[in-house]
Amino acid sequence: MKEKIAVRSLEADAQKKQTEKPYEDSLRLHPFYRGKIETGLRCPVRNFDDFAIWYSPGVAAPCRAIAADPEKVYEYTSKWNTVAVVSDGSRVLGLGDIGAKAALPVMEGKALLFKYLGGVDAFPITLDVQDADQIIETVLRIQAPFGGINLEDIAQPKCFEVLDGLRARAEIPVWHDDQQGTATVILAGLLNALKVVGKRLDEVVIAFVGAGASNTCAARLIFARGADPSRCRLVDSRGILGPWRSDIEAEQKRYPAKWRFCHITNVEGRRGGIAEALRGADVVIAASKPGPGVILPEWIASMKEGAVVFACSNPVPEIWPWEAVEAGAAVVATGRSDFPNQVNNSLCFPGLFRGALDARARTISDGMCFAAADAIAGRVSERLTPDCIVPSMDDFQVFVEEAAAVGLQAQREGLAGVSWSREQYLEQARRLIRRARDMAAKAYRDGFVAAAPD
Amino acid sequence: MKEKIAVRSLEADAQKKQTEKPYEDSLRLHPFYRGKIETGLRCPVRNFDDFAIWYSPGVAAPCRAIAADPEKVYEYTSKWNTVAVVSDGSRVLGLGDIGAKAALPVMEGKALLFKYLGGVDAFPITLDVQDADQIIETVLRIQAPFGGINLEDIAQPKCFEVLDGLRARAEIPVWHDDQQGTATVILAGLLNALKVVGKRLDEVVIAFVGAGASNTCAARLIFARGADPSRCRLVDSRGILGPWRSDIEAEQKRYPAKWRFCHITNVEGRRGGIAEALRGADVVIAASKPGPGVILPEWIASMKEGAVVFACSNPVPEIWPWEAVEAGAAVVATGRSDFPNQVNNSLCFPGLFRGALDARARTISDGMCFAAADAIAGRVSERLTPDCIVPSMDDFQVFVEEAAAVGLQAQREGLAGVSWSREQYLEQARRLIRRARDMAAKAYRDGFVAAAPD
Repeated sequence: MKEKIAVRSLEADAQKKQTEKPYEDSLRLHPFYRGKIETGLRCPVRNFDDFAIWYSPGVAAPCRAIAADPEKVYEYTSKWNTVAVVSDGSRVLGLGDIGAKAALPVMEGKALLFKYLGGVDAFPITLDVQDADQIIETVLRIQAPFGGINLEDIAQPKCFEVLDGLRARAEIPVWHDDQQGTATVILAGLLNALKVVGKRLDEVVIAFVGAGASNTCAARLIFARGADPSRCRLVDSRGILGPWRSDIEAEQKRYPAKWRFCHITNVEGRRGGIAEALRGADVVIAASKPGPGVILPEWIASMKEGAVVFACSNPVPEIWPWEAVEAGAAVVATGRSDFPNQVNNSLCFPGLFRGALDARARTISDGMCFAAADAIAGRVSERLTPDCIVPSMDDFQVFVEEAAAVGLQAQREGLAGVSWSREQYLEQARRLIRRARDMAAKAYRDGFVAAAPD
Repeated sequence: MKEKIAVRSLEADAQKKQTEKPYEDSLRLHPFYRGKIETGLRCPVRNFDDFAIWYSPGVAAPCRAIAADPEKVYEYTSKWNTVAVVSDGSRVLGLGDIGAKAALPVMEGKALLFKYLGGVDAFPITLDVQDADQIIETVLRIQAPFGGINLEDIAQPKCFEVLDGLRARAEIPVWHDDQQGTATVILAGLLNALKVVGKRLDEVVIAFVGAGASNTCAARLIFARGADPSRCRLVDSRGILGPWRSDIEAEQKRYPAKWRFCHITNVEGRRGGIAEALRGADVVIAASKPGPGVILPEWIASMKEGAVVFACSNPVPEIWPWEAVEAGAAVVATGRSDFPNQVNNSLCFPGLFRGALDARARTISDGMCFAAADAIAGRVSERLTPDCIVPSMDDFQVFVEEAAAVGLQAQREGLAGVSWSREQYLEQARRLIRRARDMAAKAYRDGFVAAAPD
């Protein structure tokens, strides 16, 4: 990795130029294609008489059947495979509160990923309300056509309340990708990184830099998986968390998890900023603000031998990977596709929802997140290196394995509405994901989707 | 027509059996296909690097552009071509209040028709709230991803309030197909029927049987088009409307249009039921309750020479067409595909929305309904007979002509966001509708959509 990254460092200028390219292409191609998803027919129209089957009068029969037995909606409609990608546009990418319209390209992109990577039909719903109660109320009102809800790009602390409220009240699984998705992929990477450096999860000292939505959830999930919170510490913009943090105490109602962390982490009572939080730590998981320079090389040097660094801010990580490696890091992961070890939500949600939908799961439990993380980690366990702790998105099989692991875990926890074998989950996921990709490729080859202009 | 219908009458038994077939097929094929629409990719994924264009980081560029200029959402997303099919499930087909889940097969069917007939991407949103204010509020909150709203199967009088409220407050065109769609197709049929019998719209006596959502709107639209309300009469389950109807006066807040009709129609002050309403009328437009026997042959016989009968109830018209013809009707239309002159909403909404979306119309005016009705009527004006006053759904060109007529009318009224030529509307509609049908046929041929089991 060192050589690889050293070369990259020399190419930084060229790279910066390269970094601009996705933005330019995106601004050029969005108005050419005018949207990323469309509706297609899931059933045939052999001739116009078929409308009497799919619409009036024949459609009355399945309507009547569902009225008599509401569960039949999963058999007679697209609900079984359809997810709403819901955002209020209050915290979109790094762009802040840009609202329902400007958030739409992201949610459409997410819907595209859902279909292409997971064979899941997703539809973007961007909301013109930003109050937590109104978001919850609106989603509850529109849940009938959906088999699951994927929340996205909602500002904190509102996002905690929205997720908790919907999980408690919705009939279908609700997921906030910025919390649970990111946390699950970080956990997958962490499990493999610790194998690379030969350390145990229950013994490591983890410093969490940033205590926003994703890191709060990552810490919770990693502790639930077996890390010892008392050895770990979180640090936010005002310093390391501890029971003395009266500013967090004052906001404990809005940030209950954070206030809880003030008590269960950092038993030694260490105070200070990022520098102090990193000293002597085995792992740093940063999801704070775009770098470089948020984490300094000398702070990495103060960590234990075999340090593991997750610098997840986008578009620029808290520290450049080559700086971290030069300062002694053994494994470095970022959110970027142009460095090794990309911690990417897209590794998780398509397969996880595939499994949750196929299992007809009532909710998505921590156990199902662990199952997804293990499936992701398992895809590279035979070929682990410091440069390869997570698979990449073009690994077809990762989504298939995840779906099966998640579905079976839902069954184990009594959360599933079906009882399938591992082979059934694998077969269904393979078939639906392959079909989605083949259909997209065919539409492009057949000219239904035009070739991109240069 | 007489001979044709006489033969049909003899085959009534065989036909009854045939009538059951769509229900049987529907109940068999719904669980086989498990939904009628799915999402597809509108843009290519040439390789995994394309995700940097369609999703993070590149997607930030179009987001930023829309945040700066919200109108760009029509250029950078699918909004320009996407319609929500919204229902609260309170009055679905003839099934009554069956709720959000049981209504879903109908709304998915509508979405299928939108795509196949109009090239419009439609998505079903069935709501778990049934209060008018809450329906309005919910639709307003979710309008960002949509370019239009199609309301469907909402009970009256709530549907009037919902439509009026949304038309006043939504940013995008809102349409209630059970009101405006039915009314527009009836108007199209009426214009041609009057040509067949050689009468003028401003001179005919029209008896409206039933004063529900569709007939209230049909009467309003037909009067607005030039029929003389003072010569016409409406009759509901309690008798002919007039200023003495204290029952309607008591409910005038909920039924303002109906109370208005009590004053502007029936100036002669005729009282009685359907029999009295039909006596001496030129036209009867019935949308009341399923027949047969709701309208008796002798009442048809009491109408003027060259009587025109619209018996629109489903699944069985208020009077069988052969009975009406034997009693002297010159032209008979029903809602059924197995008789001549099917008055079918599907002739209207796909082309109308195609035009409204392409024009980026702010609303759908009566003028645009007239333009659609004229385009529908125009498709058979060269070959008018008593058996052919409206085209059938398999007339590809009707939707294309409608789109152009509606779009140009929106421009004429200053309601459009574009300025296109007739040829541009025709070309766009032809291309998008052809593409939708070709894609559906190809997916079936390629096996992505399985062949239906016997």
